[in-house]
Amino acid sequence: VNGKKSKQILIAVDTSEYSNKAFKYACNLARDSESELQILHVIENFVDVGYSISKELENTGRRTLHKYDARARSVGLLSVNTILAKGNPAEEILKVADKKNINIIVVGSRGHYASLSDYLLGSTSYKLAHYSKCTVVIVK
Amino acid sequence: VNGKKSKQILIAVDTSEYSNKAFKYACNLARDSESELQILHVIENFVDVGYSISKELENTGRRTLHKYDARARSVGLLSVNTILAKGNPAEEILKVADKKNINIIVVGSRGHYASLSDYLLGSTSYKLAHYSKCTVVIVK
Repeated sequence: VNGKKSKQILIAVDTSEYSNKAFKYACNLARDSESELQILHVIENFVDVGYSISKELENTGRRTLHKYDARARSVGLLSVNTILAKGNPAEEILKVADKKNINIIVVGSRGHYASLSDYLLGSTSYKLAHYSKCTVVIVK
Repeated sequence: VNGKKSKQILIAVDTSEYSNKAFKYACNLARDSESELQILHVIENFVDVGYSISKELENTGRRTLHKYDARARSVGLLSVNTILAKGNPAEEILKVADKKNINIIVVGSRGHYASLSDYLLGSTSYKLAHYSKCTVVIVK
């Protein structure tokens, strides 16, 4: 009965609409298992983009986290935390999972190979499935 | 609130103890979302093993399904179905998911590269993460 009681759930969100469904899944899971929700946004550093674009990506990341934080609280979650990271998404997700003793990682999945960025996110869930030490939910 | 309401949950079990944790997760999920639980066992056909070994694998598969079916009912699930398949695990899981209109696939994950069979199961969750059209939970 207590198999799904978990203490820490990590949801990784990007700025696309694809994160919405995964986020909803994570909120339900956090509520049902009375877990703390960690909301992570990773700024991908593909190439060296320069200061102003870098600042813009940071602002967008913060706005995204703020939006999801508000949404988590609006559905009644009391224990919510946001994290902004920079780097390779899969690597950053795994780092946070280790550091915060995450029990379940929730990520969304986009259509395959529709574009470069779709491919890269696909590749994130692929890596998590393989390298994560905790349970991973890939929401489609 | 009804984001995680799903109608059909598929749990793939093998004969190892690694399936136990994933099975527990699937049962909790099925109970909380009032879903039907489909329990699948895939007999892997690595090589042509001959009639008597093939029969033995089939018997073991049936016993495994029977054990998990009894366990699902013992925790109060009313709507439980078992399926025995033969072939490549990932392919068979995806086929059943399509055929039965599965909403969430639950699979266990073993340690990586500890043995050939560990490697193969790892590779199953890897493929599911990538090719499944529905949400996949990889229980560790």
